[in-house]
Amino acid sequence: MSTSDAQSGPSILESPSKPVAHGRAFAPGRTLRQGGKVLPEHARGHNRSLVLQTLFHQGAMSRADLARETGLTRVTMSDLVAELIADGFVAEMGVREASGPGKPAMLIDLDRDGHRIVGIDLSGNDSLIGAVLTLDGSIVARREVPLPVAADLVSTMVDLARALVADSHAPVLGIGVGTPGVVDDRGVILTAPNFGWAGFDLEGALRGALGLPVLVANDANAAVLAEYTFGGAADDVLLVKVGRGVGSGLLASGQPMRGSRFAAGEIGHVTVGTDGGPQCACGKVGCLEAWLSVPALTSRLAAASAPADREGILRDAGERLGIALAPVVGALDVSEIVLSGPPELLSGPLAEEALATLRARTLAQPHEGVRVRMTQQGDDIVLRGAAVMVLSGQLGVS
Amino acid sequence: MSTSDAQSGPSILESPSKPVAHGRAFAPGRTLRQGGKVLPEHARGHNRSLVLQTLFHQGAMSRADLARETGLTRVTMSDLVAELIADGFVAEMGVREASGPGKPAMLIDLDRDGHRIVGIDLSGNDSLIGAVLTLDGSIVARREVPLPVAADLVSTMVDLARALVADSHAPVLGIGVGTPGVVDDRGVILTAPNFGWAGFDLEGALRGALGLPVLVANDANAAVLAEYTFGGAADDVLLVKVGRGVGSGLLASGQPMRGSRFAAGEIGHVTVGTDGGPQCACGKVGCLEAWLSVPALTSRLAAASAPADREGILRDAGERLGIALAPVVGALDVSEIVLSGPPELLSGPLAEEALATLRARTLAQPHEGVRVRMTQQGDDIVLRGAAVMVLSGQLGVS
Repeated sequence: MSTSDAQSGPSILESPSKPVAHGRAFAPGRTLRQGGKVLPEHARGHNRSLVLQTLFHQGAMSRADLARETGLTRVTMSDLVAELIADGFVAEMGVREASGPGKPAMLIDLDRDGHRIVGIDLSGNDSLIGAVLTLDGSIVARREVPLPVAADLVSTMVDLARALVADSHAPVLGIGVGTPGVVDDRGVILTAPNFGWAGFDLEGALRGALGLPVLVANDANAAVLAEYTFGGAADDVLLVKVGRGVGSGLLASGQPMRGSRFAAGEIGHVTVGTDGGPQCACGKVGCLEAWLSVPALTSRLAAASAPADREGILRDAGERLGIALAPVVGALDVSEIVLSGPPELLSGPLAEEALATLRARTLAQPHEGVRVRMTQQGDDIVLRGAAVMVLSGQLGVS
Repeated sequence: MSTSDAQSGPSILESPSKPVAHGRAFAPGRTLRQGGKVLPEHARGHNRSLVLQTLFHQGAMSRADLARETGLTRVTMSDLVAELIADGFVAEMGVREASGPGKPAMLIDLDRDGHRIVGIDLSGNDSLIGAVLTLDGSIVARREVPLPVAADLVSTMVDLARALVADSHAPVLGIGVGTPGVVDDRGVILTAPNFGWAGFDLEGALRGALGLPVLVANDANAAVLAEYTFGGAADDVLLVKVGRGVGSGLLASGQPMRGSRFAAGEIGHVTVGTDGGPQCACGKVGCLEAWLSVPALTSRLAAASAPADREGILRDAGERLGIALAPVVGALDVSEIVLSGPPELLSGPLAEEALATLRARTLAQPHEGVRVRMTQQGDDIVLRGAAVMVLSGQLGVS
């Protein structure tokens, strides 16, 4: 197999009209402090992203509609659309029935089948999961391989990614990877104890091996992007990912929170309450993870005999989640907590108790409207989030 | 008295080269979703702010240095500087000694005395405090009036602002106000129980009466801006303001956090711990405010006889602050907690215990580097933050 499919298509990275990578370039505070000027090519990249973003969210429309929606002139729009058609990102979809006099309008849309994205999820318990996704985030092919020993992890990922690129049958826009651990904004794994990585440039290693754009992020940070782009999440949302560990991804005003050391969202080892709690693997007592992780919950549930005991265990875990999150809801005024993980554990009593606890422990007004709900993205949430990273990084669409 | 001083100067709001109001305009996620295009005048406003921002932070330099720092061409820079000199925001400061061959360079700087800013602080216990500030945030005049009954508050503020404008002896760039309560991004007070305000357009009322740009924000949100601009705060910082109540202001990646209902920072009525606590005025038990507010601390200290008891009271309050903030440090990976309020209460045992508790209740790596410190801005922090709001809103400087 080879990556020839991908390389025969127009490469975004080599294109003279390379779009601004909004996922990273738009950190206005830092940009200003570092002295970012606005050049004509920035405006062009921004406007190109704006067209793609509009089509991504609103679907097919005429060039005239696009001009109206974006505020750009018809001439500018005509040039931009021609360029995007030549690059294979936009296609003409046929004419719309004319509703009045005049020529019927040609509809333009994102060419959702013109490119593919490869997503890889390293957060599984015992397997690596990969998928080929359309620009819509639909999964069109999927592969799963057993988790190898740590020393073979990168070569196994490279093989998996190559197989998925071969499955793609269209140019591949890029490869997104969601992984446990703390990941910096260059895709360097600062720490991922599960895999023994510390300061490892996973993004660079994969890019070098695959010859395609690669974007690597923490799995929960990827997941919250999927929830925002495909799950209708609010602009201020915290996604709690419950698996072997407990992590979270956070958006404020629709922007991903990174943190001062790229460790935003690391709530698994925050101590909950002032009355002790279960022993945590980290050595402390009463960490959120010790209350809420899948292994912790399943072992406590297995020891419970009566259904009422089982419900009590889930309610206790939900209460602890609410106790841990109340200060975060207060400080950030998030409007929504989204839970990702086994629904048989998280939905029902656990989510109900988390909400009741959040309401009891924050100021009624303005926080009484806060919601707690399960994601509808299921087990594909990290894969779809990885696709959003590529859409955002390569096309400026989010 | 009149506002003629201010109105005789160049009004930013009427200038054809009005800069982008970075404090509000730059919310990239929302901007994209709402379809913001980049126009030439945006680039011009951005570059104008960039020049002001560079001079604000780095001080006097030549046009050639400015061009190099900002990446703009010398021709563009020359035009921009001419425009900014004409508007009274930039001045020539004299030539620098030539270090080599060639013409000695004329130094350019922000005209720090060319304009004044008026700041008003409504967070005092029993007075309204106002000041005239330079563009540097230095206070050059100050007035204080007793807090009137609620019905007279706006007219008292207007009188105070007019007196300060008269004190200014230079064009007034704008008026910044820091107030307790939840304030939206248009300066409407959504709720401020102390003053009986709910849905009150304070910004509009003051602008109408004063004929000058007015910017209103929550007092703790103003304070964190002062700490960021003048106090050397990190990009990811939480400022806790302790007075009659307890509030906070939060920056992530140097950007102010607003929250889904503009209530970010409202941590005073978050319940702390799971072992009860003092009764709070809100009706709940164990709110952070019931542990930490100045009235709560002073009344408990007054009842203590031995110095050891007093230290114990302060340590307990610091521990509660650490318990409340640990999940926030985990979720946001802030690197610094700054305390604002009476140093005789907050510095020493209280701050020490807060730090020790934070460290004990979060993941050692990456959070062991988190700091807790007192602000050096003293009681002027809200006034200086109000000035930053005006600098940011009117000049794009932060």
